[in-house]
Amino acid sequence: MTQPLYQQIADEYQRIIHSGALKRGDRFPSIRHIMQTQQVSMSTAVQACHVLEDWGLLRAKARAGYFVEDVQAHKQTTSPSAASTATTHPTELPEDWAKRYDGLHQLISQWLAEAEQKPVHIDFMTAVASPSLYPTAQLNRAATSVLRRHPEILTTFARRYGHPKLRAVLARRCAERGMPLEGKAITITHGCIEALNLALRAVCSKGDVVAVESPTFYGVLQALEAQGLQPLEIPTSAEHGISLDALEMALDTQQPPVRAVICMPTLHNPLGCSMSDANKQALVALCKRYQVPLIEDDIYAQTGPEQALGKPAKAWDSDGSVIYCSSLNKVLAPGMRLGWMAAGKWQARVEMLKYSQSRYIDELNQLTAASFMESQAYDRYLLRFQAHLQQLRHCAAQAIERSFGTQVQVIYPSGGMMLWLRLPDDASALELSKRALEQGVLTAPGPMFSSKPRMAHFLRLSYGAVSEAQIENGIRILAQLLPQCRIHATLAKTA
Amino acid sequence: MTQPLYQQIADEYQRIIHSGALKRGDRFPSIRHIMQTQQVSMSTAVQACHVLEDWGLLRAKARAGYFVEDVQAHKQTTSPSAASTATTHPTELPEDWAKRYDGLHQLISQWLAEAEQKPVHIDFMTAVASPSLYPTAQLNRAATSVLRRHPEILTTFARRYGHPKLRAVLARRCAERGMPLEGKAITITHGCIEALNLALRAVCSKGDVVAVESPTFYGVLQALEAQGLQPLEIPTSAEHGISLDALEMALDTQQPPVRAVICMPTLHNPLGCSMSDANKQALVALCKRYQVPLIEDDIYAQTGPEQALGKPAKAWDSDGSVIYCSSLNKVLAPGMRLGWMAAGKWQARVEMLKYSQSRYIDELNQLTAASFMESQAYDRYLLRFQAHLQQLRHCAAQAIERSFGTQVQVIYPSGGMMLWLRLPDDASALELSKRALEQGVLTAPGPMFSSKPRMAHFLRLSYGAVSEAQIENGIRILAQLLPQCRIHATLAKTA
Repeated sequence: MTQPLYQQIADEYQRIIHSGALKRGDRFPSIRHIMQTQQVSMSTAVQACHVLEDWGLLRAKARAGYFVEDVQAHKQTTSPSAASTATTHPTELPEDWAKRYDGLHQLISQWLAEAEQKPVHIDFMTAVASPSLYPTAQLNRAATSVLRRHPEILTTFARRYGHPKLRAVLARRCAERGMPLEGKAITITHGCIEALNLALRAVCSKGDVVAVESPTFYGVLQALEAQGLQPLEIPTSAEHGISLDALEMALDTQQPPVRAVICMPTLHNPLGCSMSDANKQALVALCKRYQVPLIEDDIYAQTGPEQALGKPAKAWDSDGSVIYCSSLNKVLAPGMRLGWMAAGKWQARVEMLKYSQSRYIDELNQLTAASFMESQAYDRYLLRFQAHLQQLRHCAAQAIERSFGTQVQVIYPSGGMMLWLRLPDDASALELSKRALEQGVLTAPGPMFSSKPRMAHFLRLSYGAVSEAQIENGIRILAQLLPQCRIHATLAKTA
Repeated sequence: MTQPLYQQIADEYQRIIHSGALKRGDRFPSIRHIMQTQQVSMSTAVQACHVLEDWGLLRAKARAGYFVEDVQAHKQTTSPSAASTATTHPTELPEDWAKRYDGLHQLISQWLAEAEQKPVHIDFMTAVASPSLYPTAQLNRAATSVLRRHPEILTTFARRYGHPKLRAVLARRCAERGMPLEGKAITITHGCIEALNLALRAVCSKGDVVAVESPTFYGVLQALEAQGLQPLEIPTSAEHGISLDALEMALDTQQPPVRAVICMPTLHNPLGCSMSDANKQALVALCKRYQVPLIEDDIYAQTGPEQALGKPAKAWDSDGSVIYCSSLNKVLAPGMRLGWMAAGKWQARVEMLKYSQSRYIDELNQLTAASFMESQAYDRYLLRFQAHLQQLRHCAAQAIERSFGTQVQVIYPSGGMMLWLRLPDDASALELSKRALEQGVLTAPGPMFSSKPRMAHFLRLSYGAVSEAQIENGIRILAQLLPQCRIHATLAKTA
């Protein structure tokens, strides 16, 4: 559950370098020195140096060891100041270098960019699990074996729309979940987010209205705005998911009409709820009746026990009008960036859009994933993975109760890797997130999950990528900051 | 220059299976049998079987050997008939299952889709080189070493915008070409096509006019149409590249105004020409004067000798208004799908668009490429690669002269992997391409390279992915078909 040792050591030296104790050009401690002072093996010391090298903090010189590199170069940049010095003649950059997030959902983009510029010690925002929870060693072995069996895989043009082996494995896994598909009905994409973008591009044009849940995944809101589409927020409850009554009214009366519905019926992000099978079926029927495509985002499905979550809505799709989108990023390997979709009757269109936008997906990752997923080891791994997540979820819920008491309400979902916290009504989640970020604790404030001024006192906490100690610690920091982020506190201060 | 042995054997068995001599469910010849009849080593026989397995033509059964699989399942599908059977209830699919390429440049999309449905023996369309021309073994070793050094790379969330090591190596390689950049000014993308798409999304809105060369790369025309942008074709010659006079007039007078210029100043696709350094400089100055961003596509730059090609136009960019796009697909490893861009003052915007569209790039490929490209082995490889391409180019030019004589004019470029053929004025390149495809020879007909009814008697031949024998053979087939594809022939037939 904790970070690997070499990573901890790398973190420690990163802090030392950032503190200024080691400066650019300084000779870095030798491997032997690290082994002795940290009491670790040579391979751990070497690996820690590799990590620092990758971060751009160290540079190896042949036969002379490691030297400290430019510390600033390490920071990944979207910061205007950093990036502006990056062009050939930075001084001439215009004042409005920005214009940068026009039409890209300013609030979301700004928060993402801000988060990148600050040092983060506890990441409650990134919704993935730590490498130790994924089948890291097994995937490594699979990748090495794929490279041996397919020696030209890196230098051969990839097949369109995905490798047949991965498509076949995914189809079989879908069938097991009650959603029969053929491999060739599946298109491999760059993550679920590309799938969602392609689905929207395939069925909508600029200006169209798209029904979304409220709250909804901020990535959907950003993608909609970036494509010039209008979100129509449909009330969604943590008990039942999207309100079918409200959706029906919208489909019936909305002008301009709703062109697509985008929905997470299973393990909703951020609410964590899953609709009942009956409601999923009703949702599909409703969209079909109004001939509006349903875009289903099923990315968290396998992070919880199947019996609790039910089937995907796509299982009730009788005419190919549900566009199903998912990914292996959450459930198998965030580093592979493999997404996929079953676009039904829009498949040819989606695939040509994919071709025009980003062509094909490289095949090494695809075959690596396929060869692991076709084995029973995958099933065993999934159960372990779900149990680990549940343990972390439990730990987070307990920490919240301990630190916040009754001030915060939280719904306990059957899967996934996030909790949706309802703070006191007069609390500002944005203010809390900002103050927490100053202390190195990154969260996702509620307003990111709506295009309206809603969700101001909600907060999303992802617990997959942090240790139990970090959960405890981070939540304590949040609870300590909360009193300063309540309107009555602000009023009292100004009074 | 020829295909590896296991691939040849796999091809041969593919033909046998397609011929019907081996049917679904049949036991496939044993490894021993293949070794004996083909006179090859066990590893070659095994590898051939793996290829067939990947194609979906064979299925391994434990302790029983290989069996022939469903032959139809092998074909990668965008064909309506194939894909329509792919959804859960295919029979209910609507007649207009198509609508599929509306707004996606019908002619280009149709040709791409058609080409997928036919068996291709000689591929003159895909503009990459064969694996044997790339540093296949070196990249494999590098990838294995990256997996060993970074055991959690597949299961760790990737960094935004690219791994710092690859960004640094690319920046250094740019500096060597006279275009100083910092690593953090570079954004890693899914191929050059994603870079071009992002550049257009960053600077244009639906309906905007974008100046393009005429002819231009069909991928640009498709991307423009898919984004709802209007191409304005600027005359472009095989001697000097884009006409700066015509471009200036367009920038000066065009209504609605030109919002961006997209250009390939070096080794233009399909013309093969490179602008002089003076003209590149003038192009940058012209765009700057009219405050119109210049999107530079430099994907073929390193496929020819540097001294003949000059610097990128971006080298003269003084205020970050050139968006430079390139890729490692042509020059290093088509299977890795790594592209990159230096978006100047639009960098933050481009990166947020990239985030909203497809998030990050997996890091295994990035580190693999970086570790090879930072070595001098890369320089040595590049020279060999360019020499190989030149040899193939020479071979293709000779074959054209032998088979076509004076009927066809062709310009001999200083690099790249394609020739642009001017057929007789009354010839239809589309007709020729269609007839050739029936015989398994795939080419790119001229009309794909324009949005107007132009280029009807031009043909693009890519020679990188074929053997010398295939070049000879394929060009002979084209020459034999030409007489049937001339208007006077058609007229004579109907008379």
